Amino acid sequence: MTAVDFEAFVDRLAATSGEAILPFFRSSIGVEDKGAGAMFDPVTAADRAGEAAMRRLIMETFPSHGIVGEEYGSEHPDAEFVWVLDPIDGTRAFITGLLAWGTLIGLLRGGNPAFGLMHQPFTRERFSGDGGSARYQGPNGNRRLRTRHCPDIAHAVLSATSPAIFDMDEIPAFQRVEARAKHTRYGGDCYAYCMLAAGHIDLVIEAGLQPYDIVALIPIIEGAGGVVTTWDGQPATKGGRIIAAGDKRVHAEAMELLNHSA
Amino acid sequence: MTAVDFEAFVDRLAATSGEAILPFFRSSIGVEDKGAGAMFDPVTAADRAGEAAMRRLIMETFPSHGIVGEEYGSEHPDAEFVWVLDPIDGTRAFITGLLAWGTLIGLLRGGNPAFGLMHQPFTRERFSGDGGSARYQGPNGNRRLRTRHCPDIAHAVLSATSPAIFDMDEIPAFQRVEARAKHTRYGGDCYAYCMLAAGHIDLVIEAGLQPYDIVALIPIIEGAGGVVTTWDGQPATKGGRIIAAGDKRVHAEAMELLNHSA
Repeated sequence: MTAVDFEAFVDRLAATSGEAILPFFRSSIGVEDKGAGAMFDPVTAADRAGEAAMRRLIMETFPSHGIVGEEYGSEHPDAEFVWVLDPIDGTRAFITGLLAWGTLIGLLRGGNPAFGLMHQPFTRERFSGDGGSARYQGPNGNRRLRTRHCPDIAHAVLSATSPAIFDMDEIPAFQRVEARAKHTRYGGDCYAYCMLAAGHIDLVIEAGLQPYDIVALIPIIEGAGGVVTTWDGQPATKGGRIIAAGDKRVHAEAMELLNHSA
Repeated sequence: MTAVDFEAFVDRLAATSGEAILPFFRSSIGVEDKGAGAMFDPVTAADRAGEAAMRRLIMETFPSHGIVGEEYGSEHPDAEFVWVLDPIDGTRAFITGLLAWGTLIGLLRGGNPAFGLMHQPFTRERFSGDGGSARYQGPNGNRRLRTRHCPDIAHAVLSATSPAIFDMDEIPAFQRVEARAKHTRYGGDCYAYCMLAAGHIDLVIEAGLQPYDIVALIPIIEGAGGVVTTWDGQPATKGGRIIAAGDKRVHAEAMELLNHSA
């Protein structure tokens, strides 16, 4: 697996999943109940079509690799290389026609995130990283992704997908950070982590994530100079309660606030 | 002002404002404090550049028309035709690099909304309407906009820009609707009203809006078959507390819930 081969393969993976998913985006199919309570669900159909297309391509090209996906479960999860797939991260954005969703393609090597890609097929944007560097490819050109400096939470723009993702124990912890942040933006999904990597958001705090919601984003965030861990500072690879920051000072201050009530 | 002339003029207006605004989007200018507390603010610069470009074009082409804008105030606000401009609706989306912002261009005739356009220059999408019909123009084609049927709030997807837009009196009213809705999506800004017109969102409830936040959206929503008023059923033209629904049954039920506590 040379570097050139790998890049071409990942491009093909993103293109293939995008072609499978896009016909369902803003589709009016599924709006009308087809009777007998059997309603066609476009986001599930798109999720499955996208993941099936990616699995087929991976199995053809790298038969020894493992695959973990949201829709079709795990295959060889103990292989040296394991692909972690979420065809549509941000299903609520998807079903409301908004653009904060994306396809997440992550690659673990020996259990550690080695490569990640977020692909937004409608806007034709790709955010990718390998932990050492990260880049953006979009309709108006390509560039390197770098997080921005931010001295403390008082200067930080905070993002979370929705206030409803936190449980009763997590709400007061999140609110301690929110009260101190410059301001909060909801509704970001995977797109918010990419905007953190691009230097437009300083802090993303979420909870209840699955591994496939975060694995692909780790090498992008870290490659851009950011930090991403669980709320208690452990590796983010297994999901759960996640904190991502563009500047390690903000990460440290947020961890302190999340874990210790005043 | 023939129909053909008008369409070409509005296209030019959207293109011109987009060209003025886009260079500031995701710009790294303004990230670093330039010292002496004088920080360059890219969203204000973009707002002013966009509005100045639109004003210039309107004054050249229709010198008798009035203009009301977010950045540069009012000119001939009592004219028969008055343009109502918001170069960047959704400034928080804009500064965080997200895509839910847009340029709002409305035209009042005799104080009533006669035409409206929402332009997203990054995604190259335009949503427009004249109260009788509404249409979408995007990179993958054009189509008519139609709201979807929705029998009641229990089946409705609700959207609001942020929980923080409501004041202490408004929060319990909004929560009565939210508790009954199928689910809620935050972070939509003007894009959420356009997704309502496109049949992907059923209900948008907001508060604290200025006239320039809503005037352009009224002919799009109504042209697509939706209803938009204040929380007490008055015309939405002056802004304030706004409720927009794709189906009039959902509008009536939401108004009831907003105005009468259990």
